[in-house]
Amino acid sequence: MKSLISKALKFENNALYVLNQQKLPTEIEWIHCHSPMQMVEIIQSLKVRGAPLIGIAAALALADFVEKKKPTREEIITIANLLINARPTAVNLSYCIEQQLQAYHASNDMQAIVHTAEQLFEEDAKLTYAMAEHGAKLIQDGETILTHCNTGALVTTGIGTALGVIIFAHQQGKNIHVYVDETRPLLQGARLTAWELEQAGIPYTLICDNMAAYSMKMGRIDRVMTGADRIAINGDVANKIGTYGLAVHAHYHNIPFHIVAPETTIDWQCQNGESIRIEERAHQEVRGAIGAFGQVTWSPEQSHVYNPAFDVTPAGLITSYILSRGIVKSIDKTLLAVA
Amino acid sequence: MKSLISKALKFENNALYVLNQQKLPTEIEWIHCHSPMQMVEIIQSLKVRGAPLIGIAAALALADFVEKKKPTREEIITIANLLINARPTAVNLSYCIEQQLQAYHASNDMQAIVHTAEQLFEEDAKLTYAMAEHGAKLIQDGETILTHCNTGALVTTGIGTALGVIIFAHQQGKNIHVYVDETRPLLQGARLTAWELEQAGIPYTLICDNMAAYSMKMGRIDRVMTGADRIAINGDVANKIGTYGLAVHAHYHNIPFHIVAPETTIDWQCQNGESIRIEERAHQEVRGAIGAFGQVTWSPEQSHVYNPAFDVTPAGLITSYILSRGIVKSIDKTLLAVA
Repeated sequence: MKSLISKALKFENNALYVLNQQKLPTEIEWIHCHSPMQMVEIIQSLKVRGAPLIGIAAALALADFVEKKKPTREEIITIANLLINARPTAVNLSYCIEQQLQAYHASNDMQAIVHTAEQLFEEDAKLTYAMAEHGAKLIQDGETILTHCNTGALVTTGIGTALGVIIFAHQQGKNIHVYVDETRPLLQGARLTAWELEQAGIPYTLICDNMAAYSMKMGRIDRVMTGADRIAINGDVANKIGTYGLAVHAHYHNIPFHIVAPETTIDWQCQNGESIRIEERAHQEVRGAIGAFGQVTWSPEQSHVYNPAFDVTPAGLITSYILSRGIVKSIDKTLLAVA
Repeated sequence: MKSLISKALKFENNALYVLNQQKLPTEIEWIHCHSPMQMVEIIQSLKVRGAPLIGIAAALALADFVEKKKPTREEIITIANLLINARPTAVNLSYCIEQQLQAYHASNDMQAIVHTAEQLFEEDAKLTYAMAEHGAKLIQDGETILTHCNTGALVTTGIGTALGVIIFAHQQGKNIHVYVDETRPLLQGARLTAWELEQAGIPYTLICDNMAAYSMKMGRIDRVMTGADRIAINGDVANKIGTYGLAVHAHYHNIPFHIVAPETTIDWQCQNGESIRIEERAHQEVRGAIGAFGQVTWSPEQSHVYNPAFDVTPAGLITSYILSRGIVKSIDKTLLAVA
């Protein structure tokens, strides 16, 4: 496989490396990933995260495995299924692996799995720059944009999804300000988005998730942009927990709410949001906080917890979808024709 | 002053003690408060917290000072003003101290300050049981109630406000379940409400603040109850940050939203929510978490932060107010007549 370099994922000197996002921003640690099983663990423990990137990371792991081990067809199918099932909510994981399998089945050549991984990696970067260009047209000079979770260069091989649009608008010379939801329980906003914005030199204000509504009421927010983990064909969107609440608040305050995602996030098999499986994660994540910054537990040790990692925002609350082909008001089958 | 005992505040053997709520639930520490200046620090650092209780705690500190130091009239006024200004948002602080000063001015007897403190302490407990009885009538067997922050026996000299209603409904034998917002940044829900519910044997589920909207959408919540720090005469309510967002969500999902507060929380000088001063607290609170459980910082160290400790919920989003005299749909001057 050729060399492939992005901010949080790289294939270099014939070895696959993943930036450990659990350690950011405290520490920069690249993990050498030796096997697909290790990649499953890396995905499940969120060392690599973000819907687009986990798809590409899994594809590279499968390609690396195929190239080094020359496995049988049965072994490839088994490993592919392991990778697809590493996390349930983001569609990109199954999309990427299925692209590889289709190419393999069509050509009966293992090398097709490797080429597809390379294509997916490069294509993902291109898609993000296209989204950034379209989305940045919406952002006016002087605007304050609220975003949730982390959707920058860490979650794609390019500039990012929602945060990519924001960074691109800044690069165009627009004077913008970003409100960053900390995004409990795993704090991707406070840890990663804040860190990326500092690196990009973009002014931002960090808030707790429960401060977003009041910030809107006080006129501090002009626009909300988030990514997506899966988009149903009726336009419903699964994304990081808290997105639905933000969409309700944006609707109530008459603030535009945009989803920024590559077309690969649309699941053409998924009729609506109700059929999206929402991953529930460990109770311990909510009882305190854990990361390279340390580990603390603040609630009673046996507290019963509800910890959905994602929620579903109905299409009716979404002002527009910023895709790589442009901005659309709704998701419909005409997109499929071009897909 | 006579002996006065509540869950988080007591005057015993001629000494004033405050339960250090910053150390809960990790540690039970009673602080001996020697002076009003120390009480100001105790209030500002949230070792004593909750609108009703900080009023009573300040009143006891003034009474203890008067009894032990026999100060001049000027000294009393100076100390009273220091206590009133310890925190800006909750009205109970100024209400209690002003009650003491009025009694003092009317009688020209320092002992009136002490008697008023005793009365305020005992009256507060009575008010909470009255609220609990009224409010519990709303709660049906089998209901799940969402609450925010901590409003139990730790914040009053009695059973509490919103959490008092919930505990009372449980004591009546109703089969109820409580959803507890963790309440960032200071985690009063995760630390204190979860702890009080465990002690009371009431089943609960801890969630991050950004999970409340999705919990409502999934049909998990029948009712929302919170306390209040200040109620304007048009019915607008200042309360812990996040309350406004919850009220918008409850409204959107057609779920009843109740404010539970003693009449002393109504500020008859305050025309509407816009004139309530909202306290902004230290940036460091949002950059991580700190408490007896430890101290961690997860965001970049210089992150710019917006940290309003409270927000304002407009009257239009409030289904009803549970007061000690009963349940009312709106706040109006007829209440003042009885006040």
